[in-house]
Amino acid sequence: MAGNSHNTDWIAVDWGTTNLRVWIIGPNDSPLATLTSQMGMGVLQRDGFEPALMALIEPYLTDAKVVPVICCGMVGSRQGWAEAAYLSVPCMAPDGQSVTAVASGDPRIAVYIVPGVKQVTPPDVMRGEETQIAGFLHDHPDFDGVLCLPGTHTKWVQISAREIVSFQTFMTGELFALLAKQSVLRHSVSEDGFDAGVFDDAVTEAMDRPQLLAARLFGLRAGSLVADLEPAVARSRLSGLLIGAELAGARPYWLGQNVAIIGDGVVAGPYRRGLAAQGVEASVFEVGDVTLTGLTAARNSCKEPMP
Amino acid sequence: MAGNSHNTDWIAVDWGTTNLRVWIIGPNDSPLATLTSQMGMGVLQRDGFEPALMALIEPYLTDAKVVPVICCGMVGSRQGWAEAAYLSVPCMAPDGQSVTAVASGDPRIAVYIVPGVKQVTPPDVMRGEETQIAGFLHDHPDFDGVLCLPGTHTKWVQISAREIVSFQTFMTGELFALLAKQSVLRHSVSEDGFDAGVFDDAVTEAMDRPQLLAARLFGLRAGSLVADLEPAVARSRLSGLLIGAELAGARPYWLGQNVAIIGDGVVAGPYRRGLAAQGVEASVFEVGDVTLTGLTAARNSCKEPMP
Repeated sequence: MAGNSHNTDWIAVDWGTTNLRVWIIGPNDSPLATLTSQMGMGVLQRDGFEPALMALIEPYLTDAKVVPVICCGMVGSRQGWAEAAYLSVPCMAPDGQSVTAVASGDPRIAVYIVPGVKQVTPPDVMRGEETQIAGFLHDHPDFDGVLCLPGTHTKWVQISAREIVSFQTFMTGELFALLAKQSVLRHSVSEDGFDAGVFDDAVTEAMDRPQLLAARLFGLRAGSLVADLEPAVARSRLSGLLIGAELAGARPYWLGQNVAIIGDGVVAGPYRRGLAAQGVEASVFEVGDVTLTGLTAARNSCKEPMP
Repeated sequence: MAGNSHNTDWIAVDWGTTNLRVWIIGPNDSPLATLTSQMGMGVLQRDGFEPALMALIEPYLTDAKVVPVICCGMVGSRQGWAEAAYLSVPCMAPDGQSVTAVASGDPRIAVYIVPGVKQVTPPDVMRGEETQIAGFLHDHPDFDGVLCLPGTHTKWVQISAREIVSFQTFMTGELFALLAKQSVLRHSVSEDGFDAGVFDDAVTEAMDRPQLLAARLFGLRAGSLVADLEPAVARSRLSGLLIGAELAGARPYWLGQNVAIIGDGVVAGPYRRGLAAQGVEASVFEVGDVTLTGLTAARNSCKEPMP
């Protein structure tokens, strides 16, 4: 690895609450290596970010040059490495013009953080997804419609004329994790498994009567106690109930719209399936690819020559 | 205390997931002492129940007689001291005819557990609330209507001709605790405080559009980041959003019905307030009083003479 250190042109970083993902980029923006760790923002103090990054990238640095490091995600939040102020909607997805330079203790790197995007009315925020959006729009500059970015905090984003017009966040993924792992349902829900028919039925039920969500959730526990509900079925039903309620709430975003989903397969699949049942055929784009494209676009549009 | 041990006639026990509450009962069913500990089912193995109980009641026992101990709650679940099989709706609230005798290692006590109640379609279960219902109906034998028992898992129970006809559980209290303490909202929600106007507005919003619950929840975090939402306001709003969604779901239970709430003031108050805004004036009954009445009724209706 270290033998290639002179090939490192710049470094792309997607730094979220839970994970740190790094791409070492060589000449012509070609990735030389992909590195990951569990050193997300959630487990780091402010002075822990640089060591966590260096632990991954050190072998790819030389004393001969200064390497730009372009970061997106929660690393730019108030609890992150340095706060990168939000842009406000309506706005273009951020590029290199709006990055925040971060002081680092190592002269071999020059660190920049992409800003998040906020909406004041109704209040909403994103950090990381704006870079995915920038990457998607780099490849699809004429896209006009809605992006769905499923995850811990799923975003529905209205895009028009290359601008982020408005967005709405549903904390569906976090609810799923809390309920499956930390609530009374943990005794009744398996760690994996997906039954498509059960999921579909639960989506329909939740879309029809979202007000019964908290009752249907307890029904998963009761079903396992008095009706032999299988843990894998309970998991599929939990997913369907939460995503169904979200689809009902996000209806103004997807109804009659051109929808693209940006996510990994595990989380994008159920959203695509739920939308298809409503007659919306959404394309799916891999989140890692789109993030790297967005960070590359930021790297190539920086306001001043990077070292 | 020990000087009164010869006065102990029997012992009432409300043993839930989190708390253990004991009443030492003297002649004429008069309480001599109330004792509590944090030794709920959730922290006990099967062989830990008797020691946890004895740690509280030992000073009130003598070698001169065997004292009946009547228990209700999660102590009778599969993970409890001993499983007390469910009654099935429609049924009378259980009395002493249906208690399960539990072997104990101490000859000074004879332990009995009141059964829970189950519903197969749709699946639902209660343990502990059935004894509150029995206590309430002991004092109000002609009640016909709906009982609301708010808590970690709030129950709505249809009562007719002294029978539990049907019920529905909403895991609203557990959702509140998970969101306020273990989700990203923990940074934005205070530990106490109640703003009645904020609560009322949130109830109305959630009843109108329960499908937006997961979005409005994230809005509490975003509001604190970009709109200076106060933590005590966020707490009141969180409570209102969850209870409002539940009231929308439980509408068939309370609409046009005679409703009584059984709960402590902190949790019963918001439910009473939310119902009043819908034109339903519910009476509130203190959960401890009603539980003790129910356990007393069980004690006085046992199928065989207790020692």
